[in-house]
Amino acid sequence: MLVLFRWLIHRTIDKIARGYQSESLTGGLLKVDPVVAERRAQRARTLGTVLRSTASIVVGTIAVLLVLGDLGVDLAPFIASAGVVGVALGFGAQSLVKDFLSGTFMLLEDQYGVGDTVDFGVVHGTVEEVALRVTKVRDAAGTLWYLRNGDIARVGNQTQEWANAVVPVVVAADADLGAAQAAVRRAVDSVQADAVLGGAFLEPPTVEVGDAITADGVQLSVSVRTRPAMQWDVQRALRLAVRDELRDADVTLVSA
Amino acid sequence: MLVLFRWLIHRTIDKIARGYQSESLTGGLLKVDPVVAERRAQRARTLGTVLRSTASIVVGTIAVLLVLGDLGVDLAPFIASAGVVGVALGFGAQSLVKDFLSGTFMLLEDQYGVGDTVDFGVVHGTVEEVALRVTKVRDAAGTLWYLRNGDIARVGNQTQEWANAVVPVVVAADADLGAAQAAVRRAVDSVQADAVLGGAFLEPPTVEVGDAITADGVQLSVSVRTRPAMQWDVQRALRLAVRDELRDADVTLVSA
Amino acid sequence: MLVLFRWLIHRTIDKIARGYQSESLTGGLLKVDPVVAERRAQRARTLGTVLRSTASIVVGTIAVLLVLGDLGVDLAPFIASAGVVGVALGFGAQSLVKDFLSGTFMLLEDQYGVGDTVDFGVVHGTVEEVALRVTKVRDAAGTLWYLRNGDIARVGNQTQEWANAVVPVVVAADADLGAAQAAVRRAVDSVQADAVLGGAFLEPPTVEVGDAITADGVQLSVSVRTRPAMQWDVQRALRLAVRDELRDADVTLVSA
Amino acid sequence: MLVLFRWLIHRTIDKIARGYQSESLTGGLLKVDPVVAERRAQRARTLGTVLRSTASIVVGTIAVLLVLGDLGVDLAPFIASAGVVGVALGFGAQSLVKDFLSGTFMLLEDQYGVGDTVDFGVVHGTVEEVALRVTKVRDAAGTLWYLRNGDIARVGNQTQEWANAVVPVVVAADADLGAAQAAVRRAVDSVQADAVLGGAFLEPPTVEVGDAITADGVQLSVSVRTRPAMQWDVQRALRLAVRDELRDADVTLVSA
Amino acid sequence: MLVLFRWLIHRTIDKIARGYQSESLTGGLLKVDPVVAERRAQRARTLGTVLRSTASIVVGTIAVLLVLGDLGVDLAPFIASAGVVGVALGFGAQSLVKDFLSGTFMLLEDQYGVGDTVDFGVVHGTVEEVALRVTKVRDAAGTLWYLRNGDIARVGNQTQEWANAVVPVVVAADADLGAAQAAVRRAVDSVQADAVLGGAFLEPPTVEVGDAITADGVQLSVSVRTRPAMQWDVQRALRLAVRDELRDADVTLVSA
Amino acid sequence: MLVLFRWLIHRTIDKIARGYQSESLTGGLLKVDPVVAERRAQRARTLGTVLRSTASIVVGTIAVLLVLGDLGVDLAPFIASAGVVGVALGFGAQSLVKDFLSGTFMLLEDQYGVGDTVDFGVVHGTVEEVALRVTKVRDAAGTLWYLRNGDIARVGNQTQEWANAVVPVVVAADADLGAAQAAVRRAVDSVQADAVLGGAFLEPPTVEVGDAITADGVQLSVSVRTRPAMQWDVQRALRLAVRDELRDADVTLVSA
Amino acid sequence: MLVLFRWLIHRTIDKIARGYQSESLTGGLLKVDPVVAERRAQRARTLGTVLRSTASIVVGTIAVLLVLGDLGVDLAPFIASAGVVGVALGFGAQSLVKDFLSGTFMLLEDQYGVGDTVDFGVVHGTVEEVALRVTKVRDAAGTLWYLRNGDIARVGNQTQEWANAVVPVVVAADADLGAAQAAVRRAVDSVQADAVLGGAFLEPPTVEVGDAITADGVQLSVSVRTRPAMQWDVQRALRLAVRDELRDADVTLVSA
Repeated sequence: MLVLFRWLIHRTIDKIARGYQSESLTGGLLKVDPVVAERRAQRARTLGTVLRSTASIVVGTIAVLLVLGDLGVDLAPFIASAGVVGVALGFGAQSLVKDFLSGTFMLLEDQYGVGDTVDFGVVHGTVEEVALRVTKVRDAAGTLWYLRNGDIARVGNQTQEWANAVVPVVVAADADLGAAQAAVRRAVDSVQADAVLGGAFLEPPTVEVGDAITADGVQLSVSVRTRPAMQWDVQRALRLAVRDELRDADVTLVSA
Repeated sequence: MLVLFRWLIHRTIDKIARGYQSESLTGGLLKVDPVVAERRAQRARTLGTVLRSTASIVVGTIAVLLVLGDLGVDLAPFIASAGVVGVALGFGAQSLVKDFLSGTFMLLEDQYGVGDTVDFGVVHGTVEEVALRVTKVRDAAGTLWYLRNGDIARVGNQTQEWANAVVPVVVAADADLGAAQAAVRRAVDSVQADAVLGGAFLEPPTVEVGDAITADGVQLSVSVRTRPAMQWDVQRALRLAVRDELRDADVTLVSA
Repeated sequence: MLVLFRWLIHRTIDKIARGYQSESLTGGLLKVDPVVAERRAQRARTLGTVLRSTASIVVGTIAVLLVLGDLGVDLAPFIASAGVVGVALGFGAQSLVKDFLSGTFMLLEDQYGVGDTVDFGVVHGTVEEVALRVTKVRDAAGTLWYLRNGDIARVGNQTQEWANAVVPVVVAADADLGAAQAAVRRAVDSVQADAVLGGAFLEPPTVEVGDAITADGVQLSVSVRTRPAMQWDVQRALRLAVRDELRDADVTLVSA
Repeated sequence: MLVLFRWLIHRTIDKIARGYQSESLTGGLLKVDPVVAERRAQRARTLGTVLRSTASIVVGTIAVLLVLGDLGVDLAPFIASAGVVGVALGFGAQSLVKDFLSGTFMLLEDQYGVGDTVDFGVVHGTVEEVALRVTKVRDAAGTLWYLRNGDIARVGNQTQEWANAVVPVVVAADADLGAAQAAVRRAVDSVQADAVLGGAFLEPPTVEVGDAITADGVQLSVSVRTRPAMQWDVQRALRLAVRDELRDADVTLVSA
Repeated sequence: MLVLFRWLIHRTIDKIARGYQSESLTGGLLKVDPVVAERRAQRARTLGTVLRSTASIVVGTIAVLLVLGDLGVDLAPFIASAGVVGVALGFGAQSLVKDFLSGTFMLLEDQYGVGDTVDFGVVHGTVEEVALRVTKVRDAAGTLWYLRNGDIARVGNQTQEWANAVVPVVVAADADLGAAQAAVRRAVDSVQADAVLGGAFLEPPTVEVGDAITADGVQLSVSVRTRPAMQWDVQRALRLAVRDELRDADVTLVSA
Repeated sequence: MLVLFRWLIHRTIDKIARGYQSESLTGGLLKVDPVVAERRAQRARTLGTVLRSTASIVVGTIAVLLVLGDLGVDLAPFIASAGVVGVALGFGAQSLVKDFLSGTFMLLEDQYGVGDTVDFGVVHGTVEEVALRVTKVRDAAGTLWYLRNGDIARVGNQTQEWANAVVPVVVAADADLGAAQAAVRRAVDSVQADAVLGGAFLEPPTVEVGDAITADGVQLSVSVRTRPAMQWDVQRALRLAVRDELRDADVTLVSA
Repeated sequence: MLVLFRWLIHRTIDKIARGYQSESLTGGLLKVDPVVAERRAQRARTLGTVLRSTASIVVGTIAVLLVLGDLGVDLAPFIASAGVVGVALGFGAQSLVKDFLSGTFMLLEDQYGVGDTVDFGVVHGTVEEVALRVTKVRDAAGTLWYLRNGDIARVGNQTQEWANAVVPVVVAADADLGAAQAAVRRAVDSVQADAVLGGAFLEPPTVEVGDAITADGVQLSVSVRTRPAMQWDVQRALRLAVRDELRDADVTLVSA
């Protein structure tokens, strides 16, 4: 009966996983992005494997207990000693359980996928693998970080839908702010005119003046909504363009 | 009987959710702001879904246990092993449970909604989604942050009813404070005279002198109560106006 | 019988709440400050509501268990599974319980009320609402903070009975301290002579010399006991008056 | 029988409290300082109230359980559900219990009383009230702090028996240390000659040379054992006297 | 029967371990790197030993309990006292259990092996031994660190597949960026032309301009993907080459 | 029978305490230092009191339970409610239990005694009292600190057997190191020649050159093993002597 | 029977301890270093004592329970109250249990022995005693530190097999790096030629150029593998030799 039971559970899990996977193929016919579909399939497979293992272990343990009970073996000592050990293990294993639960929810919520640039607070880099217990991230120096999912307090995904290229520009305290603003705007226009980088602009850029006035100078800020993962290239280009334009306009640049 | 029971519970939940939702439509006929009504409906739906799932799981588990008990299966080993596993899971799942409970109370208390600008201490940005386990926030750089609700120690909502545009102005230590105060007040008046920004003023602005006297200079402070989300534009305008007026009044501005 | 029991409990709670509330009306006939009375009534209502809900839930749960027991339903599986879930919930809900318990004691001890200016360490502002789970505080920038009561490690109420306007004055290291002290005392007198601010003085002000001698200069300190919430205005006036008097006395002011 | 039991317990508690209180009146006839006696009586009253309430609650609960048991009500569901709730409450209430236990021990050990100047690490001020759950402290700015007793990691009582007025004096690196030490000693003598401050000296003051030699200068240090709460006045007087004497001795003072 | 049971379990463990080990020999015939094979065998042996000990202890304990039970000894006091001690031990042993569980998963996931250069946050060095409870790491000063596996929050393996030699180059704020970039590129080419270091280059190097513009200067950055453990030699060579080329190009180098 | 049992336990405790105490009188006839003997007796008394109270409470509780059980009172509700309360108390009291256990082990291991100068990390001073729950320490300013024993993470006893007077001497970067070393050695010799301080020297002093070479200068270091509590006087004398000798040798002293 | 049982356990423990100890005498005939043998014997004795005490306590407790059970005493109240107390004690004693378990594993893994120079993060010094609960370390100032083994997060043993004498040398930014490197190499050779220090060299020293280029200068680094505990003397000699050689080579030394 238990074998039957286990088979039933596995079938149900498979169905759910397959349903979850195909949902993206039928429900959103137009929007089927192969990358998204692949990511969805991957997640379905990862979760299905885990659910199946868990079900097998649970069913197996119960089967062993039932068989032993039928053989007339007194289970009390087993269970009692299991209780004592269970407490010790329960405390020690709590971070393990937390890792798996956090990983499961992260997968279900699709917080990040392989290839995303992610900021985990202590580690910042590109996701190499998303598993249930650990996430592998490769940082700028090529170091491969293994992060336990339960330890990840917050996730900042920098490549989701869109990003902002933000460049704070500080000019000298006695600068002509009108000329500075005009020069900065010309710099933004020149970057937008670029063949490659201009295509990454998603919305009209904004230039704000007066974010701060300190002894160092007056701060303007440029903000450009770009395609994901393009913000760093745009920021670099903006800094260089602002430097050139402000020099032409005879405004002293302090930092950008 | 359990099916009946489950149906009864679901009906009750639906009624409560619908009642909670319509309360805003009848109880406060005049004040029905469509945004508020939508937000309320959204919250009612989110909470209703969760309550219904929870009820189904509880009723289902009890049903399975009862059926197995009626079939003469000895439940002791199940329950005992469940106890051992329960301890391990209980410890590991505690942050999960905490996330959901925190999320539920945050929703009930309506601490923030989609579109609010919120300060979570470590992350500062615009709320993109409020779920029961995680809150999604988009910061100024466009990074999408996933924050676990149980980890959010404090919530600072910057767009609730009103805000203060506060600009601390530091003038040189040997400045004529009377002239400085007059200039700053003229600057505030000029911003209030602005067609767009002036409309955001909710109360007469205040200008205080003497907040601090240090080696850097003497600090004045301007405070303007504005409509929510307008405080940043007002602050920028105030800084620029103060800079212009102080220059005209021959008072050295250190920072603003 | 349980309905009777519940009715009895509710009546007792009402009586206690009403007694607690009226205590301030009869016991201290002369001192009945309407603000204090309103605050007391508010607290009585808040606590009464909570006590009544708790009593209803407890009595209801017991009733359901008794009825099910009388119907011959075997409660063992219910209770056993409740135990397993209870552990998981208990861990997850502990901060929730802590919030409510902390809130209850804060209310009973009347640590702060609506309108008080309070320093919570991480957040500093005016209390907008005191609830059992969260406290709402509005800071100087108009940000509305939601603080969980259990997370509030310490409460500093700045508007309770009286406050001190403390201004540390640092004069140049080679200054004539006698002249400096006399000038500072004249400054304090001039503030005390002010029609509005002088009325806030509760005790004769003190001026101490020699709090510190460093490379920056010699520190004097002025301390004035004022009415609550008046200390900031008095401090500002003191700083300006000290600046004027020290200039007249030819003593170099470093900071105040 | 339980009423009798409760009466017996209350009598015992009263006796202990009274004995504890009168112990100071008979056991140390000569040393009976009215302040100490009042403090002891206050503590006896506070602790007696708590012990009596606790005893009443315990006896009452047992009584209710026994009566219900005699009425033939099956207590199993009560106790089982109490167990589940107990876990949740136990976790949430642990800091509450910790507060009360810490407060009880603090009172018994008489760590500080009303009027003492106490350093709690994060808060420093004068104790206004010592209760079992919270301690009220008023700091220099007049802010009233509510500190939970269980959160107080360490207590530094600055007004217990005696205090040290310690003034580190730094003179220029190339100063004549003999002349400096003589000048500092003259300064100490002049303070000790003061009518008021000299009476606070409990032991002959010490002047040490060579505590540190850095690029800033050479450090001497003065240490005077004073009556409690007098150390701050003595320190101020010492700093001013040292400044005057070193100037007369032509030694450059860096800080004191 | 238990001896049989224990034998069966040991056989199963041996088979799994051997299977796990040989998997690398048959499944990937071409890729069999002797280092990888040795590492795999080592891990199989470590895990096998542990599994066998655990199985023996579990089977042994159950056997003793069963034998005692058959001898008619009442096991209740044993188990009850074991429960009490179990709680105390369980709490104290939780970090121990956590260490072993973390170590087991680290081994299974092959996060690092003997000889890898690893960044554990607080300690950085070369792995000397990977055991189930502790990891031994030798840092640059030759200090041998013993780190408990459960305490290792995150693992950064710097010698996995590839690494990046990243050198941020800051030139003077008024430098000719075109000339600077050309010089830096020439420097990279000269290192790539080196017989030894050039062989470590895995991809064409990149030179980005405009990573930051501050008062210190303008930042360029060089990034070279290298073979693992070669990044430090390449970085040193890059710094020296950049220094020489920039001097030849008359561009002021601030830091590299 | 229980009275007998309690009497037996108390006798055993007394014997152990007396044996522990007299051990120092017979076992080490020659080395019997009266201070050590007094300290040992003090510790024996403190521990004996605690053990006797604990035994009385345990025996008393069991007696009450047995008597009530013999009277036919059903103990189940008592014990069950005690279990619920026990969990709440257990959590709240854990730091209390930890304090007492830590204190007991500190006493047994004789980590510090009254009069020792001890560094507890956050507090540094002279031990005034060693109790089982708290340790009283008086710091340099005369503040009396109450530290909970369980909170004391580490204990640094500065007056145990011997101490090192360590003085790092930094001379100008271009100084003649040979002359500097000779001058420092002469300074050490002059201190050793002192009647009082020389007697505190336990081993020949060492002078090392080259501990660090920085922009500030070159660091030498003097280290003298002294009698406990003499290290501070020796350090002060060393600093002054080094200053004088280096001035005579025309070597610029930066710090000491 | 229990006496027999206890005797059997003690014999087994003795055998294991003796076997563990003699293992070093027979298994590795050639390598028997008397220091290592003594250390091994010491560890065997420490662990044997503990194991024997533990076994006696366990057997004794069970014996008492069995005897009481045979005398017809109802053990339920004992065990139940033990359960309640056990929870409270279990929580409070967890750090104690953790200390002993950590100490046991540290001893088994031989992480450090008496006389080793060890870096515990917060404390750095020479090990004076390794016990099961605390480790005694004497730091450079002669302060004796008592560290609880469970609190020791990581252990850095600086005297295990070998050490590295690492000296980072910073020369002026415009220095001739070729001349600098040659001079540094000459300095290393001169130290290696020293009779005492040269014998501590275990491998040919390395000199790397270009570890960092900053505004301060260019960094070279010398690394010498030395015998344990010799690294500090070698470092000092290297610094002085580098200073001399660079002066001879007319290269400006910034720090070493």
